[in-house]
Amino acid sequence: MSSPSDRPLPPLSGPVPGEDEDDRLRPGEVAAPLPERFDAGLFYIGRIRTPWTRRGDCPRNARQSDAVCTIEVDERFAAGLTGVESCTHLLVLYWMHRARRDLVVQAPRHYGEPRGTFALRSPVRPNPVAASVVKLLGVEGPRLSVVGLDCLDGTPLVDIKPYFASTDAVGDAVVGWHAARTA
Amino acid sequence: MSSPSDRPLPPLSGPVPGEDEDDRLRPGEVAAPLPERFDAGLFYIGRIRTPWTRRGDCPRNARQSDAVCTIEVDERFAAGLTGVESCTHLLVLYWMHRARRDLVVQAPRHYGEPRGTFALRSPVRPNPVAASVVKLLGVEGPRLSVVGLDCLDGTPLVDIKPYFASTDAVGDAVVGWHAARTA
Repeated sequence: MSSPSDRPLPPLSGPVPGEDEDDRLRPGEVAAPLPERFDAGLFYIGRIRTPWTRRGDCPRNARQSDAVCTIEVDERFAAGLTGVESCTHLLVLYWMHRARRDLVVQAPRHYGEPRGTFALRSPVRPNPVAASVVKLLGVEGPRLSVVGLDCLDGTPLVDIKPYFASTDAVGDAVVGWHAARTA
Repeated sequence: MSSPSDRPLPPLSGPVPGEDEDDRLRPGEVAAPLPERFDAGLFYIGRIRTPWTRRGDCPRNARQSDAVCTIEVDERFAAGLTGVESCTHLLVLYWMHRARRDLVVQAPRHYGEPRGTFALRSPVRPNPVAASVVKLLGVEGPRLSVVGLDCLDGTPLVDIKPYFASTDAVGDAVVGWHAARTA
């Protein structure tokens, strides 16, 4: 398998017919009409290179894979990485550009039962900003090697933050509906 | 002190002269020209009510205060909260609407030494999306009572996610530059 960084960057596009979710609602799902205007704008500050080029190939969550991924920060913003090398872990925000945004209640294929969007980590949400904690392996210029991502190759990068155990780590947190499901 | 929810919502605005950072750079700071166009748009899906109406009053980080804050989700998206009540903790994304966006190296007042934006949790960043872990106290209709926020009253809400200890909690993570500073 070729290294992700050697492959050409996939084009940015919306949902891909046949591969992404379509417009039909599953039983129990609820769509909300979206506002007519955006309230704020995001810059893509880089792209994320991963081994996964189709939605179905992505791991279900970031702990299901130890694949090394590469975060490529645009040259314009690369000076912002100064000091990042001293972090063991980072919080990475990225834009799930292929997800629809109008479902407030949804039934992900692997869960079945419908739940509120804000009780799920599904990419389908009004603002499809994902947040993943990654382990930092190395920094080479504007490129970070990390473990802990589960997104598509070419995913747009939104932000990188240092992960502080003191404020970000809550080891005994419980997601009740999920715990009940796996108990 | 009146409860935040009784006060009128403060208007949304950019940096406030005299209170927010101004355009001058401190020694060592570096500004990057921002792209001419946004790549994606955000909807404000609600507002956050906190006791803090001026930047200087906000706690330095979310663990410095046990003030109860209220997250108010717009009616349009309120059905998305179904199931959230079963979570002990949430990851809340919000928009730091009063921060400038062009600094890639910055010297926050309380740290002095300049560091890359992506090694800091400063609100000043190309995409001023903050991520805070909160403890959920209660849900009443479209309102969540939480502890663990440090933002201004009226801050626009971007997303709410369930916090999974299995993927989000890394208790032994270290931010090297910060650890060296406090050691």
